[in-house]
Amino acid sequence: MAEQTKTFDVIFEGTGTASGKMRNDIHVTWPMMKESFDLATDEGPFHGGDGTAPPPLALFTAALTGCLMTQIRAFAKRLKIDIGEVKVNARLHWKGEQTGNAPYETGPVGFDLDVDLDSGATPEDQARLLDAARKGCFIETTLAQGLTVGHRLRIGEAWQEA
Amino acid sequence: MAEQTKTFDVIFEGTGTASGKMRNDIHVTWPMMKESFDLATDEGPFHGGDGTAPPPLALFTAALTGCLMTQIRAFAKRLKIDIGEVKVNARLHWKGEQTGNAPYETGPVGFDLDVDLDSGATPEDQARLLDAARKGCFIETTLAQGLTVGHRLRIGEAWQEA
Repeated sequence: MAEQTKTFDVIFEGTGTASGKMRNDIHVTWPMMKESFDLATDEGPFHGGDGTAPPPLALFTAALTGCLMTQIRAFAKRLKIDIGEVKVNARLHWKGEQTGNAPYETGPVGFDLDVDLDSGATPEDQARLLDAARKGCFIETTLAQGLTVGHRLRIGEAWQEA
Repeated sequence: MAEQTKTFDVIFEGTGTASGKMRNDIHVTWPMMKESFDLATDEGPFHGGDGTAPPPLALFTAALTGCLMTQIRAFAKRLKIDIGEVKVNARLHWKGEQTGNAPYETGPVGFDLDVDLDSGATPEDQARLLDAARKGCFIETTLAQGLTVGHRLRIGEAWQEA
């Protein structure tokens, strides 16, 4: 008998409020788990902020690194592949392009994650675990697939597609 | 005389260390700015963790929301478009698919950001500002362009492409 395939949804919501010069307070909820998290971003003085919280790209770097590491540990159990003290080194490289004083435009150059599983498992098993973790990491698969974020803009009392 | 176009690089690095059952401590550095940030992810008890830190997708939600909000405020000044207390509501939707007890595979369904600029500027100017912020938000442009993350795996003393 074929094993059953099931699908599930993962939905996170955030409410961001501008506070301080460049600080944003973001209340994040995970409704299905009834969990919520108070997070914030800021910029350092060089970029007009007060340095009260990490910049958005620091949170992003931690999110991507933590996502892969979490799936490595979750799936090591399911695949019965022994791992030790997992360490991941991440390097995320973007570029920007600016003409005069116009708002700059951005894009990615390359993201690289070096993974040390501290494992005595065979190279094949370690590669199999990493491959499963990549496919299970919501952030990596989103990046790989690509996605245009949808936007609406509040104009008066109405929400308009933007 | 045409205005000069210049390009710049933005590089973040992270070092993630597994600690606790599902907790990851991630030391993030922004070498060019000589800044560093100690961040962490964890999972709640339902997913085998201790709930000592937000899950990676909560950090991701805050990063995406904060990224757009930061560029809105940075570029409002450059474009001379008045804004008030900016608020952004984010909804990030992913799906997973699992067969039996095998590691699940993931993908994005849709991300939506609703933006209230609290502004008396014309709808056209508000849309112009939002458009500039989207193009300047490193995370949104990375998602739009898509990117396959590179990986290396440490096998013994050597780093192998994985």
